[in-house]
Amino acid sequence: MVNIVKENRLRPTRSGGRAARKAQRSAESQNQVVKAGMLGGTYKPLQDRDLEKIHQAALKILETVGIGDATPEVIELATDHGCILNEGRLCFPQALIEDVLANAANEYVVHSRSPTHADLHVGGYRVHYATSGEAVTIFEYDSKTYRPSTLVDLYDACRLVDKLEYIHQFGQTVIPTEISDLDEHDFNVAYALLSGTEKPFEMTFNRVQNIRPTIEMFDMVLGGPGRFAEKPFCTFGGCPIVSPLRFAKDNLDVLVETSRLGLINDIAIAPQAGATAPAPLAGTLAQVTAEGLACLAIVNFIRPGCPMSFAIWPFISDLRTGSFSGGSGEEAVIIAAAVQIGKFYNLPTTVPSCMTDSKIPDAQAGYEKGITAVLAGLAGGNRILESAGMLGSLMGCSFEALVLDNDMLGMVQRVIRGIEVTDETLSVDVIKEVALGPGHYLGHAQTLELMQSEFLYPKLADRAAPGIWEQEGSKDILERAHEVAGEILAVHYPNHLDPKIDESIRNRFPILLPRDAMKQNYRWAAP
Amino acid sequence: MVNIVKENRLRPTRSGGRAARKAQRSAESQNQVVKAGMLGGTYKPLQDRDLEKIHQAALKILETVGIGDATPEVIELATDHGCILNEGRLCFPQALIEDVLANAANEYVVHSRSPTHADLHVGGYRVHYATSGEAVTIFEYDSKTYRPSTLVDLYDACRLVDKLEYIHQFGQTVIPTEISDLDEHDFNVAYALLSGTEKPFEMTFNRVQNIRPTIEMFDMVLGGPGRFAEKPFCTFGGCPIVSPLRFAKDNLDVLVETSRLGLINDIAIAPQAGATAPAPLAGTLAQVTAEGLACLAIVNFIRPGCPMSFAIWPFISDLRTGSFSGGSGEEAVIIAAAVQIGKFYNLPTTVPSCMTDSKIPDAQAGYEKGITAVLAGLAGGNRILESAGMLGSLMGCSFEALVLDNDMLGMVQRVIRGIEVTDETLSVDVIKEVALGPGHYLGHAQTLELMQSEFLYPKLADRAAPGIWEQEGSKDILERAHEVAGEILAVHYPNHLDPKIDESIRNRFPILLPRDAMKQNYRWAAP
Repeated sequence: MVNIVKENRLRPTRSGGRAARKAQRSAESQNQVVKAGMLGGTYKPLQDRDLEKIHQAALKILETVGIGDATPEVIELATDHGCILNEGRLCFPQALIEDVLANAANEYVVHSRSPTHADLHVGGYRVHYATSGEAVTIFEYDSKTYRPSTLVDLYDACRLVDKLEYIHQFGQTVIPTEISDLDEHDFNVAYALLSGTEKPFEMTFNRVQNIRPTIEMFDMVLGGPGRFAEKPFCTFGGCPIVSPLRFAKDNLDVLVETSRLGLINDIAIAPQAGATAPAPLAGTLAQVTAEGLACLAIVNFIRPGCPMSFAIWPFISDLRTGSFSGGSGEEAVIIAAAVQIGKFYNLPTTVPSCMTDSKIPDAQAGYEKGITAVLAGLAGGNRILESAGMLGSLMGCSFEALVLDNDMLGMVQRVIRGIEVTDETLSVDVIKEVALGPGHYLGHAQTLELMQSEFLYPKLADRAAPGIWEQEGSKDILERAHEVAGEILAVHYPNHLDPKIDESIRNRFPILLPRDAMKQNYRWAAP
Repeated sequence: MVNIVKENRLRPTRSGGRAARKAQRSAESQNQVVKAGMLGGTYKPLQDRDLEKIHQAALKILETVGIGDATPEVIELATDHGCILNEGRLCFPQALIEDVLANAANEYVVHSRSPTHADLHVGGYRVHYATSGEAVTIFEYDSKTYRPSTLVDLYDACRLVDKLEYIHQFGQTVIPTEISDLDEHDFNVAYALLSGTEKPFEMTFNRVQNIRPTIEMFDMVLGGPGRFAEKPFCTFGGCPIVSPLRFAKDNLDVLVETSRLGLINDIAIAPQAGATAPAPLAGTLAQVTAEGLACLAIVNFIRPGCPMSFAIWPFISDLRTGSFSGGSGEEAVIIAAAVQIGKFYNLPTTVPSCMTDSKIPDAQAGYEKGITAVLAGLAGGNRILESAGMLGSLMGCSFEALVLDNDMLGMVQRVIRGIEVTDETLSVDVIKEVALGPGHYLGHAQTLELMQSEFLYPKLADRAAPGIWEQEGSKDILERAHEVAGEILAVHYPNHLDPKIDESIRNRFPILLPRDAMKQNYRWAAP
């Protein structure tokens, strides 16, 4: 039987005094327990010989099958660089791919606009978590239903994430479904993110011609032309591949333009095993690796060394229906394998996690997210997207889930930090002192010193005794997350834009976000 | 934006005909996707040099600090084998421990009493999941409160687990708190498990003198004296250590007796970092390794090669209160490290997982269980205990959680299975055929062939579209688990004991489980 120690000598006293100040200081110093960019690489589902086989299969696919539907511009560019057009498909000789790999960017930096938030040094085994998803619905807590998402939802999700410490980048969680004009859509997404957070962010464009004006918007915020290129805080999404092995025209145009501009290409290539990729997970990995290498080649043909995430996102089908299932064990293991392939090439990696199939933040959502998030991180995924807020196989987003998943990502990041083994941490002398002396470590100086640096204390996760939990209303974590999301959204309006610059942006672009939505009491009542 | 394939060509038709028969056959053949004893070992939080340092620290602790409170019997035995008594503490010279390690059992088998269930071949990197916990309360779904657990609860939990395919062994989930007589307690636990399942099981004893009569009970069921020793289906729990570094008298007596009898010693050594072990996780590992090696030495002094799980269970304290926290990131990583230490010694390992701090099967319970369960398995833990049903840091058990966690363990086991990379699974020819042909894999022969062997389909986890989920009442997985638990408990009475043998057992032992509790409608209404 487990001996659960009941002693509670370290519980802070009621209020005031030294203990309270210490508790306060402790809470502030909790940030040091985990941080952006900790190292993964301890989980390796594939063996070295597996990686070599997948690489060889991808090379063979690129050389003999190639990629269909390239635009005339890309065909010209690629054949100039040594590709071969075979019955309309662009085929990549093996030696050409190996040249591309030798010269591709191995890392890049996404900057934050404030020292409060970390810059993302993307590469190696450094791990960061980010939102993304571009869902079309928002989960309504009270009615447990989904409704179409709006621009204000996107802005609110962004300023909520601004306060969530274990999410290192805001990627576009929802689409403003009420905006049908594609130009308005692009500029308003950019504006909502700019004004919602100073963390690094990610967005996608519907129209390639909107990229340059948006960078002008970013430059206005940074203080002048060319500033964004010096310290880019935004990465540029898109899905340039339609699996199996074809280009998607509009997104390919975006990829060409962002590469010309030297921006960070933050693509996603997401074939589904059994539907748009082979049913065997290994076959899906071979195909998606080929698709990823083709994009990498195009980017590097345009601008050698241009940053691009090797963003192979193998998805899983539920073959009973053919539909995408994001929360399966197959998804968890194949994503970790995708990270390994990226590291095999020493490329910066982006993968998804936390794509639960559940429609509500319940135990299913918890374990599907927890398992996929921790394995993507332990594999060493550099930027792990979709990692908070998403529900229903990416169909919806939830403010409650954003808050709840952030707490979970704290736990995940504590796992990734691992265990430091040194003569000091092994504590042989402390063990001798305590075993021969008081018989417990609770009051030992080493324990007090490490209390705030070795252990991470969750904010939402409940650790109370059953009796106390019952007295407090037998709440589950979803109820608590709803309360906390409301508290943050009612008061946290970062308002990161200089009013004059804001005015200039609103004069120049068709900004639709109401000024009132950027003030308290618009739709969240202060507590 | 993610292209979610809507095609559903493989959905079985309404009823009857070839498709329905195929779906039926498919459901039956799902067992082949995962199985007991799949190989872990792909997650390694510690490096080789860390393992060597922990080993050296443990040896130093055993030699210089030793273990206190040994019984006179154990002191005599141990000093005869070369231990040194130093100020009342039993110290273990380094060379002695190395001898013990060289001769200890590297594996053992726990048998099932039916070909329906797998035998557990414990050792190497083979992974199995089991319940356990010995909680004192049961979660009441309707009132969301906890009440004291009873003998009928234990029997019901056991026959529920008998139907849950991803749980390979039943360990004693709850204590019959209404039984105060320690002999009645021991015999009734044994009887409840014997009659509740033919899976391998685990139990602990309050009184050492009850072990031999209980084995006679087991022999009666198997058909005669000595039969249990030939095919043991029960492992024998206990906590012979009170951390830091002391023996626990009663449990040490049990360990001595089970070793004399050559039974499977299924102990648990659970010091808490910061309370009964050092705050640094590495220090806790050094201490618990020393404690585990001391037990291994005693077992092997008594009977060289007697099976014993190297069951180091480092626990985490929440140092704000000093109480045990089972659901933290620290717990997840230190348990995986404990498995690595066991594998460093090539010993069979037992570790806990799924010890959530939540009091209800919510998202917190989900991610805390999911993360700890998958990492213990990927590390290669041989028998992973506490893995289903437990809530509130092991204070309570829940029928709903048993059902729900079983579904999660299916996902976890699919992760552990990993990805098979062969020329065939890489599918280069299939990719070529599909890319140049139909453009999707849904109808391909390879997809149809692998539909039931590559992918695991959950039973409780929901994958429906949001609209369908709303139409069906916006249920969470806890509600579905409650329904399924009730359905199984209402009808699944395995009744595995021959009536005559049952009568003999009841004549000989003070059996308290009402015969009515072993029939339908006792407290679960058939649907």
